[in-house]
Amino acid sequence: MSPAEAAALLDQFKRDEASRDEVLRAFQAAPVIDLGFAVVDSHRALRKGFPEVIFGAGKTPDQLAAIARKIVGSDRRVLATRVHDAHAAALREAFPHAIHHAQARLLTVEDAPLPKRDGTIAVVAAGTTDLPVAEEAAITADFMGNHVQRIYDVGVAGLHRILARVPDLQRASVVIVVAGMEAALPSVVGGLVARPIIGVPTSVGYGSHMGGLTALLGMLNSCASGLTVVNIDNGFGAAYAANAINELAHPLHP
Amino acid sequence: MSPAEAAALLDQFKRDEASRDEVLRAFQAAPVIDLGFAVVDSHRALRKGFPEVIFGAGKTPDQLAAIARKIVGSDRRVLATRVHDAHAAALREAFPHAIHHAQARLLTVEDAPLPKRDGTIAVVAAGTTDLPVAEEAAITADFMGNHVQRIYDVGVAGLHRILARVPDLQRASVVIVVAGMEAALPSVVGGLVARPIIGVPTSVGYGSHMGGLTALLGMLNSCASGLTVVNIDNGFGAAYAANAINELAHPLHP
Amino acid sequence: MSPAEAAALLDQFKRDEASRDEVLRAFQAAPVIDLGFAVVDSHRALRKGFPEVIFGAGKTPDQLAAIARKIVGSDRRVLATRVHDAHAAALREAFPHAIHHAQARLLTVEDAPLPKRDGTIAVVAAGTTDLPVAEEAAITADFMGNHVQRIYDVGVAGLHRILARVPDLQRASVVIVVAGMEAALPSVVGGLVARPIIGVPTSVGYGSHMGGLTALLGMLNSCASGLTVVNIDNGFGAAYAANAINELAHPLHP
Amino acid sequence: MSPAEAAALLDQFKRDEASRDEVLRAFQAAPVIDLGFAVVDSHRALRKGFPEVIFGAGKTPDQLAAIARKIVGSDRRVLATRVHDAHAAALREAFPHAIHHAQARLLTVEDAPLPKRDGTIAVVAAGTTDLPVAEEAAITADFMGNHVQRIYDVGVAGLHRILARVPDLQRASVVIVVAGMEAALPSVVGGLVARPIIGVPTSVGYGSHMGGLTALLGMLNSCASGLTVVNIDNGFGAAYAANAINELAHPLHP
Amino acid sequence: MSPAEAAALLDQFKRDEASRDEVLRAFQAAPVIDLGFAVVDSHRALRKGFPEVIFGAGKTPDQLAAIARKIVGSDRRVLATRVHDAHAAALREAFPHAIHHAQARLLTVEDAPLPKRDGTIAVVAAGTTDLPVAEEAAITADFMGNHVQRIYDVGVAGLHRILARVPDLQRASVVIVVAGMEAALPSVVGGLVARPIIGVPTSVGYGSHMGGLTALLGMLNSCASGLTVVNIDNGFGAAYAANAINELAHPLHP
Amino acid sequence: MSPAEAAALLDQFKRDEASRDEVLRAFQAAPVIDLGFAVVDSHRALRKGFPEVIFGAGKTPDQLAAIARKIVGSDRRVLATRVHDAHAAALREAFPHAIHHAQARLLTVEDAPLPKRDGTIAVVAAGTTDLPVAEEAAITADFMGNHVQRIYDVGVAGLHRILARVPDLQRASVVIVVAGMEAALPSVVGGLVARPIIGVPTSVGYGSHMGGLTALLGMLNSCASGLTVVNIDNGFGAAYAANAINELAHPLHP
Amino acid sequence: MSPAEAAALLDQFKRDEASRDEVLRAFQAAPVIDLGFAVVDSHRALRKGFPEVIFGAGKTPDQLAAIARKIVGSDRRVLATRVHDAHAAALREAFPHAIHHAQARLLTVEDAPLPKRDGTIAVVAAGTTDLPVAEEAAITADFMGNHVQRIYDVGVAGLHRILARVPDLQRASVVIVVAGMEAALPSVVGGLVARPIIGVPTSVGYGSHMGGLTALLGMLNSCASGLTVVNIDNGFGAAYAANAINELAHPLHP
Amino acid sequence: MSPAEAAALLDQFKRDEASRDEVLRAFQAAPVIDLGFAVVDSHRALRKGFPEVIFGAGKTPDQLAAIARKIVGSDRRVLATRVHDAHAAALREAFPHAIHHAQARLLTVEDAPLPKRDGTIAVVAAGTTDLPVAEEAAITADFMGNHVQRIYDVGVAGLHRILARVPDLQRASVVIVVAGMEAALPSVVGGLVARPIIGVPTSVGYGSHMGGLTALLGMLNSCASGLTVVNIDNGFGAAYAANAINELAHPLHP
Repeated sequence: MSPAEAAALLDQFKRDEASRDEVLRAFQAAPVIDLGFAVVDSHRALRKGFPEVIFGAGKTPDQLAAIARKIVGSDRRVLATRVHDAHAAALREAFPHAIHHAQARLLTVEDAPLPKRDGTIAVVAAGTTDLPVAEEAAITADFMGNHVQRIYDVGVAGLHRILARVPDLQRASVVIVVAGMEAALPSVVGGLVARPIIGVPTSVGYGSHMGGLTALLGMLNSCASGLTVVNIDNGFGAAYAANAINELAHPLHP
Repeated sequence: MSPAEAAALLDQFKRDEASRDEVLRAFQAAPVIDLGFAVVDSHRALRKGFPEVIFGAGKTPDQLAAIARKIVGSDRRVLATRVHDAHAAALREAFPHAIHHAQARLLTVEDAPLPKRDGTIAVVAAGTTDLPVAEEAAITADFMGNHVQRIYDVGVAGLHRILARVPDLQRASVVIVVAGMEAALPSVVGGLVARPIIGVPTSVGYGSHMGGLTALLGMLNSCASGLTVVNIDNGFGAAYAANAINELAHPLHP
Repeated sequence: MSPAEAAALLDQFKRDEASRDEVLRAFQAAPVIDLGFAVVDSHRALRKGFPEVIFGAGKTPDQLAAIARKIVGSDRRVLATRVHDAHAAALREAFPHAIHHAQARLLTVEDAPLPKRDGTIAVVAAGTTDLPVAEEAAITADFMGNHVQRIYDVGVAGLHRILARVPDLQRASVVIVVAGMEAALPSVVGGLVARPIIGVPTSVGYGSHMGGLTALLGMLNSCASGLTVVNIDNGFGAAYAANAINELAHPLHP
Repeated sequence: MSPAEAAALLDQFKRDEASRDEVLRAFQAAPVIDLGFAVVDSHRALRKGFPEVIFGAGKTPDQLAAIARKIVGSDRRVLATRVHDAHAAALREAFPHAIHHAQARLLTVEDAPLPKRDGTIAVVAAGTTDLPVAEEAAITADFMGNHVQRIYDVGVAGLHRILARVPDLQRASVVIVVAGMEAALPSVVGGLVARPIIGVPTSVGYGSHMGGLTALLGMLNSCASGLTVVNIDNGFGAAYAANAINELAHPLHP
Repeated sequence: MSPAEAAALLDQFKRDEASRDEVLRAFQAAPVIDLGFAVVDSHRALRKGFPEVIFGAGKTPDQLAAIARKIVGSDRRVLATRVHDAHAAALREAFPHAIHHAQARLLTVEDAPLPKRDGTIAVVAAGTTDLPVAEEAAITADFMGNHVQRIYDVGVAGLHRILARVPDLQRASVVIVVAGMEAALPSVVGGLVARPIIGVPTSVGYGSHMGGLTALLGMLNSCASGLTVVNIDNGFGAAYAANAINELAHPLHP
Repeated sequence: MSPAEAAALLDQFKRDEASRDEVLRAFQAAPVIDLGFAVVDSHRALRKGFPEVIFGAGKTPDQLAAIARKIVGSDRRVLATRVHDAHAAALREAFPHAIHHAQARLLTVEDAPLPKRDGTIAVVAAGTTDLPVAEEAAITADFMGNHVQRIYDVGVAGLHRILARVPDLQRASVVIVVAGMEAALPSVVGGLVARPIIGVPTSVGYGSHMGGLTALLGMLNSCASGLTVVNIDNGFGAAYAANAINELAHPLHP
Repeated sequence: MSPAEAAALLDQFKRDEASRDEVLRAFQAAPVIDLGFAVVDSHRALRKGFPEVIFGAGKTPDQLAAIARKIVGSDRRVLATRVHDAHAAALREAFPHAIHHAQARLLTVEDAPLPKRDGTIAVVAAGTTDLPVAEEAAITADFMGNHVQRIYDVGVAGLHRILARVPDLQRASVVIVVAGMEAALPSVVGGLVARPIIGVPTSVGYGSHMGGLTALLGMLNSCASGLTVVNIDNGFGAAYAANAINELAHPLHP
Repeated sequence: MSPAEAAALLDQFKRDEASRDEVLRAFQAAPVIDLGFAVVDSHRALRKGFPEVIFGAGKTPDQLAAIARKIVGSDRRVLATRVHDAHAAALREAFPHAIHHAQARLLTVEDAPLPKRDGTIAVVAAGTTDLPVAEEAAITADFMGNHVQRIYDVGVAGLHRILARVPDLQRASVVIVVAGMEAALPSVVGGLVARPIIGVPTSVGYGSHMGGLTALLGMLNSCASGLTVVNIDNGFGAAYAANAINELAHPLHP
């Protein structure tokens, strides 16, 4: 039942051409009634706090560009993840001002950056091979309207490196910790700050690293209370969650 | 080097019995210098936002009671998780006002509840067998000073049940979703609310549920952006993280 | 919004105390609107073809009995799975005519059996240790209104045993094949009959049987086209699916 | 023993050149006696309801074409799965009217489509990256003589999308649900329709999706009763099973 | 079709009351025709070289005793594996001369031992905790009519122990090697003897021994060519295979 | 201590330049004393029944050719497994009469085939994609001096195919069964023949076939007693074991 | 060939009753010749640096006591691991001065402790639930003649605790680090000391700790170079290795 | 707080411009205070016994060269692991005397080799395919200032090969054992020598070798006491640990 049909039914009801029971039954007939979801859907940016994002992997450049055009049409900005060069070329043709963040495998299109809300999201990375995932998180968080502080190359084997950054860590609203191999870093960070911490295991490693499962299991079993975790290499998801947390504390449009 | 020793060294320095270089070298001798950590440690409740918690599993009732006495001595309140009846008996002997939340396997000791900060933590559970974990989360969150709303028995096989609670979900600051088996619930909730969501997989199920690994993997691979996850059956950890998020937005002592 | 509230709103609309837009907006406010789901819910037996079933594992006898009472109140019949003796005792107190199928770990309550629809569901089991799961399937299928033919002890190591039952297999509407260990039986049956076949791996075995995962993987990788599979030891689920198939072909109330 | 030899033996028996016992013993000598199976085999299309299908993966184009020629010779139609461009070229050389369904990795050869039996098979897919598997299911079901309704891009993170299609779902005889990642969609569909539902997990995802094992385990542990499952990415197998179900209810040649 | 029915049909054929085609079609009607398999089945001891064996695990003492009675009735001897004390008591009641090999978890019933065929089966075990499985193999092989030589406590960490037994190893027809933990012993034995070697991994170990999977994988990946392997703790299966090999070379009734 | 040194020491002993104790102590000094193992080693073909085999994977063509030259020098024949075209080219340069069995990934060099021992090794394969592994087994067994009978394309989904070959199966000394996917074939064969059976799981399949682990686990958990198993795709190892068995029964040089 | 036989043969050789070739051939006949290994074996304590140790798990109290008596007879001291109370009772009967270290599940028998070699073995443990394993390591190392320093309750979530013990860590010859859950501690320790470090993962944890596999994998993938690892809960093995290292640097009997 | 700032604060304290409490509080403010770690860091070679090593995998040639320049600047020598040809080319441009050890995937830069400490590190390898990992260990150990003895091609299937090298093994300070497949070699070596032994599992093998997990698990569960293990293919890590052990016994600069 479309909104127009619902309106017509109500008019019939008012003209006594339909009984109240008929109206109620129409709404009850299906387990869930479709009341203009298309409308709601174009309001998705408001409801979920951020416009649609495109997961690039497995999409052709043409598909990506087509979806991007649709989203930019309604939301004026779009983010695409897991993209490669051909994706970038196709998108730049459609939007000459699109930016390709190659290391982070991201594409962003926007006329102007969002204003930044208060609070900072810290992105911590253990080693240099973790940077693609860390940058995916950092650029996503920035694009969503957050101040971002990068704290890189602070693996626990040289403990002084992370200890030297404790003040920065403690100033952040949320801390994203990106680490591969045994992923000991989030446990150390978890003992140093009281703010929400989100762990991102990476597939960096060799031998029994199990494509990142070792890091993932390590984070899930961390002795640091309150660490939450996202999927392997999911820098975007961590930033999305961090944004939701920061938005709760520092709404962009209070 | 204890604080007393550090103070003595400074006095020597002032009396010119020690050079500035000697003082600096003393602090630099070890990679990290021990400056009265015992003092810092007793301030742990301030630094991490919550006093020490006791993980009961694998501890004797006597050990648990002894540790509890020490924490209550400095912090006046304590929470013990994964406890059984013998733990409860031992603790009640030490603290007659201790409360044993048997279903949640928790023990709490406090003279008076903490005041409640603003905002609500919603605890959502799919089925009745998930309740021990859900209650662990709910009681922990309450004990840490949060309003808690329980939304139970809303598994996705009867979709209307969770849909009927959407307004409650959307009012919450943070949503904890507890689910076993295939753990589809967090994905559905993730499409309905924009707030931070924390998934807790449970070991509920049989056959290839793999002791909760199936639910854990399901949550980590959720199509709902921004879901973060804790270890299997870790209701306490989810509440700890939710408290950190709610405290960021609504500090207890602003 | 309850049905009463919806009715009241419609009355306001008719009295021009509410505009059409207000009515529509009320229904659109939440992503999905609650229109008397409780009513829909009591009609669940119609919508899903079978009343609620109780999964006994992890429930106390009292909880089981309470839920059973509620379901029998509206549907006049109930099935409980994975029950033990204490469950049976509690249920028999509430319903003296409850039957405890001990080997199958089932409890059934009904005044009279459902009439039987046409068609037969064959339940095939490889070995005697598979019988608890096979009986769970057979009794469930019978309880849901189907003729059931049991074909037991026909493992492939003595191939003549299953070959001798080919005519029975070919007469069935649906075939449920229950097997543990390497679970070769469904592949053999799949080459002999054209009807829908549902495999139920069991946790029977030792060593590297992996609690039934070996049988499960064997069935999923069967060379027999069109075999579908349910979870390990899930005799109930197989019967539920077989009933849906048989009901499609031979509706109980056409 | 060939049919000719059996006939000869019977003639000897009639001429008293062989005793009844000799005849019976000849048939009993081997555990199973070969009575003209070649004949039965060319009748396989009748016995199993569908002619031979060729699994293309691992076969050379020449091998595929040769097998296809043999099947088309007896059955006048053939379906090849998991094919690539070289397979298609080889088959088109043999059968110029062969159709290559590239996205679905299928090849079909037939003079005219089968007539369509009553009933509809709905193919539901969560995301666009699931389409190759969904199309494998849809085209196979169509080729086997079924009406097919495609319901695509209805992942649970935007719940209104699947809810809007409930009437279509409820009209179908059988529902095939194709989903990767955490595969929550079948559980939601399972709560909405009473018809047989077959889940097809896909290898779509990243990180801990385990090449589709996460989706597979999710479906096997679904809280929706009666869902049955096929192997990862096995769209063909799901369609084959769905066809068997629909044929049971609506036989093509009753 | 029973043998009696087949005989009757042949008689009809001889009396010209049935045509040759009718007879042939009757045998061809089903894919495989049941020609007195019960008869064949009681001849199973001849066909497979050894009477039926009862797998005791999961059977009640009464079930075990009943099956044993049936087998002894036709074969005069029986072997039951994976038995416990209650099984033994039940069997001894039926057969006072039954022997309970407690360490090996076996029960044997026979009036007199089989004569021994030529050749010897060597059973080699790494450590004392492997003895239950080794004895299961040794007693089974002996019961089936083989000379058995036990070579125990010869783990590779004290290499001289196995080296001291090389002449014994080289005299055997077949060598069964039983080992847990890392299961290095079969690789060492495999380099010393040219005879068939069968590895039996055991579930002995702790930590990452994975219930015997580590030993199983070790044996399957042995650098010693020609080692074959049975399931974890499957001493019976190894003896059964060793008996088939020895029987091939040294038939009991040539 | 080389044989020459040992001889010299004995001479000293005889000349009373060394005491008996000194001689004994020299032999006892090391846990194991090296007494001309080089000599023994060149007799390896006698001790193990077959000359050295070269595992080609991971070796350069030059390395392979060099090792082959050394073996042919002493044994006049060599077998190389897991070879590719470059290996073949290098070996043909050294031995123009080398044969490259491309499908089986084998290279053989010999002046004349070994005489054949009595008995036959049957190689059974389920599907055409299993042929590379089956041929590796068949050609190896033939090269080692055995009659080989190939029984291919007899998967259990068309049961009559394997049943039609029962007489061939029953005539063989040893049966090698090669199967991928769910590997049901060895269980069926195991119920039909009393001879030693060796299962070879293959990595053929897709989805949850787990690179052949599903087939491997299926065979290890077979309900057919006495099946032994080798590593995934290890056709060579199965033939090596089968040769040892056949040699025991039918020695090449009795 | 026993030493006596070897001596006799040499005497024959001297008396010219055996040729030099006969002597050499006798020693070369078997691949490895048994030259009084029993003698060597009783010298095992010297060769391996430590007398035989008894692994108690799976042994009866009587078996344990019998083996202990034999070892004490030759070596005057013995260590038994993984023992329980009944083991202790049996051993105390045989050796009233046996000591039962209940938490560590060890039994020790010795007249007097070994003298202590130079150097210290530090045993570091993350949490109190790791103490049984840590004590197994500490008591074993002490029993083998080493100074031991226990550094307990220094998990990384409170980083200052381990930092405060850096001087102790840096003074040790070898560091054993015992940790469960995510096992981040060895990585942190590895960055602080240059001495050999041995990690012992424990089975402490819950949910996805996988019985200690998570900790094991974490240690194997540590970013700290040079960490070596033993099996889960294998405190004994770590101490045995640490003793070998310390003995190399500080021999007990130089 | 930098050392300069710390010095300034101390000066203020001496001039009574800051109280002793202020000084102490400054040092206590952060959990750990940064006292010129940069200085400590440039002394890392001393503290950890060896300069920084570069893990080449995942780094661009330019990144590798840049990091190498920085390390050589302070330490005059550098080692890069897991390098390929492009890495080598980039490094040779910067350091013409750089050596590319292609088989071992190592690059070394040094003006002159380190002097060699006493003691020998033996590197033992089972098969030729294990050589890349064995050479990584051998070259690393040599580069760090150790005598290295290579003992290659001594797999246990030809036991005499390893037995012939026992004297070499027993002379070594530390033994590194490199083995793939089932990795039985370390258990055999462990029974022959009393020195520290480090196992390196390799990813050599096929089928169920699981990318080296089988070898890893085999070593962790070795029956040889005191074996410690590093990650799969981690020849560098084994050498690093062996160097730490040898340095303890034979310090380079005592």
